[in-house]
Amino acid sequence: MAIRIGIYGYGNLGKGVEAAVAQTPDMELVGVFTRRDPASLKTQTGAPAFSADAAISMRDDIDVMILCGGSATDLPEQTPALAEHFNVVDSFDTHARIPEHLASVDAAAKRGGKVAVISVGWDPGLFSLARAYASAVLPEGEDYTFWGRGVSQGHSDAIRRIDGVLDARQYTVPIDEALARVRSGEAPSLTAREKHTRECYVVAKEGADLAHIEREIKEMPNYFADYDTTVTFISMEEMKEKHMALPHGGRVIRTGRTGLDKGHSHTIEYSLSLDSNPEFTSSVLVAYARAAYRLYEREDAGSKTVLDVPPALLSPLSHEELIKKLV
Amino acid sequence: MAIRIGIYGYGNLGKGVEAAVAQTPDMELVGVFTRRDPASLKTQTGAPAFSADAAISMRDDIDVMILCGGSATDLPEQTPALAEHFNVVDSFDTHARIPEHLASVDAAAKRGGKVAVISVGWDPGLFSLARAYASAVLPEGEDYTFWGRGVSQGHSDAIRRIDGVLDARQYTVPIDEALARVRSGEAPSLTAREKHTRECYVVAKEGADLAHIEREIKEMPNYFADYDTTVTFISMEEMKEKHMALPHGGRVIRTGRTGLDKGHSHTIEYSLSLDSNPEFTSSVLVAYARAAYRLYEREDAGSKTVLDVPPALLSPLSHEELIKKLV
Repeated sequence: MAIRIGIYGYGNLGKGVEAAVAQTPDMELVGVFTRRDPASLKTQTGAPAFSADAAISMRDDIDVMILCGGSATDLPEQTPALAEHFNVVDSFDTHARIPEHLASVDAAAKRGGKVAVISVGWDPGLFSLARAYASAVLPEGEDYTFWGRGVSQGHSDAIRRIDGVLDARQYTVPIDEALARVRSGEAPSLTAREKHTRECYVVAKEGADLAHIEREIKEMPNYFADYDTTVTFISMEEMKEKHMALPHGGRVIRTGRTGLDKGHSHTIEYSLSLDSNPEFTSSVLVAYARAAYRLYEREDAGSKTVLDVPPALLSPLSHEELIKKLV
Repeated sequence: MAIRIGIYGYGNLGKGVEAAVAQTPDMELVGVFTRRDPASLKTQTGAPAFSADAAISMRDDIDVMILCGGSATDLPEQTPALAEHFNVVDSFDTHARIPEHLASVDAAAKRGGKVAVISVGWDPGLFSLARAYASAVLPEGEDYTFWGRGVSQGHSDAIRRIDGVLDARQYTVPIDEALARVRSGEAPSLTAREKHTRECYVVAKEGADLAHIEREIKEMPNYFADYDTTVTFISMEEMKEKHMALPHGGRVIRTGRTGLDKGHSHTIEYSLSLDSNPEFTSSVLVAYARAAYRLYEREDAGSKTVLDVPPALLSPLSHEELIKKLV
């Protein structure tokens, strides 16, 4: 029996989940739940669209609901509300608020006897795993996370909110020299500025004060002030021609020392290079939807992160095949 | 209460475990079990040495026994024999025989209500994890494992068995061009010869037929015949000066495509660069010893591989700290 999947929210991530489910023979897509008028929504695969309000009435038709809303306002409400009725997976990525989100989802999931896997994707998600494994294996060492080269949607949005800006794309770029120092095992202390640069491509309104926009960007606290930032003004045509893709990636590196005299150095590096950030994140969500369903079958209710899930549960392979082919 | 660790077998791996336990405040080393005369064995840290025969009589003093014997003859006997009496971790690495080893250890562990985690290290071990996660996330794709640059002890031993050879060191070296093709996402089919070269450093007996030794090496089936192999004869002095370390490493790369039209390519790469292969392997064993003990506390008896163990169990951090610091 295929695992019956629902998609809640149909933006880039929801579309990515739709495509990823089509790649997995052990799952079938029941439909997409939207806050828009479902009659007006045409899905990529022709999967039916339902009103978000109808979701709970379909609780018996869906094994796992994959939540594809945003972390700022959608998921803090939606995940606890739905986790009582469905096994759920979400990509909640506001790192500082994960403990609080985990707790509120846990209460709901336990009330309903359901499983919720939260903060799934690549960071948090696969990068969390890389950090956890590496720090357990090399207890005396240092972790470093680098992002990019890739589009940061949060930083792009921040630029778009500046007066006079029509569109913007921000690329986060790791600094090669910092990477080399980290890999060497010297365990450097690095500031934000020493790790990444920020490249901004901006389409301004006709007649806008470009110098003012550039200054607003470069001085924006948290987002840009602590980085070496470049701003390049381009035409809308160039934006559409060169900057519509959403590539991303990054790496987690841990270096550490072993031996009674700490004489040996080791480097563990986990890296991703992604043509499409939303499609890859969706693919991780779908693998964890399989795990969520299996945990539910084991009656292991409550909320989990990727650190709580045995890796074997992510795979469509049987345990026997997994051991034979992958161990 | 610290987790009480025993080390069974005191070669390179056992010494590495001794050093790794010293780096972990939540563990204490009870002692080393040896088939040699324990009175003659002086450990690096001054930990007591006991006769291997006395191990079972100390079953109540040890929470996890870490088995540090070899995969060829030691572990197939020792792990099932000890898993009935102790929680155990081993580094059994004969890939083809893992299913059989898992089954024989499972029966013993379940008889004793104990936990056994087998085939722990980096390959099998961390590389198995890398393959399992990556193939679950990118179901349409290809896996590649490259080893090196590093010393293969099995290949070095094979050369040492040739008549006229006093000592030998074999380095496995990945071929850059193959790595570049794999990372590009083209998903090439690669032969053994296209992926790695083998560099051999050999000390010959005085008067030995060097041309004959070189031919014996290069034509050895399984070990060398399928590779471009270089043989360099060196003096014993040079061997001792330049080739006594046991560095190793390698990488697991998976490339795969997503999207309804398979329009996006992604690369996941997990790599290790290790100054000391045995010390790093030991560090992985020690992290899984912690997990084995926690699984035992949960009464989850039987044999497991790394794929069955939730990553959170490897860490000395509390679940709360883990979520806060690493997710």
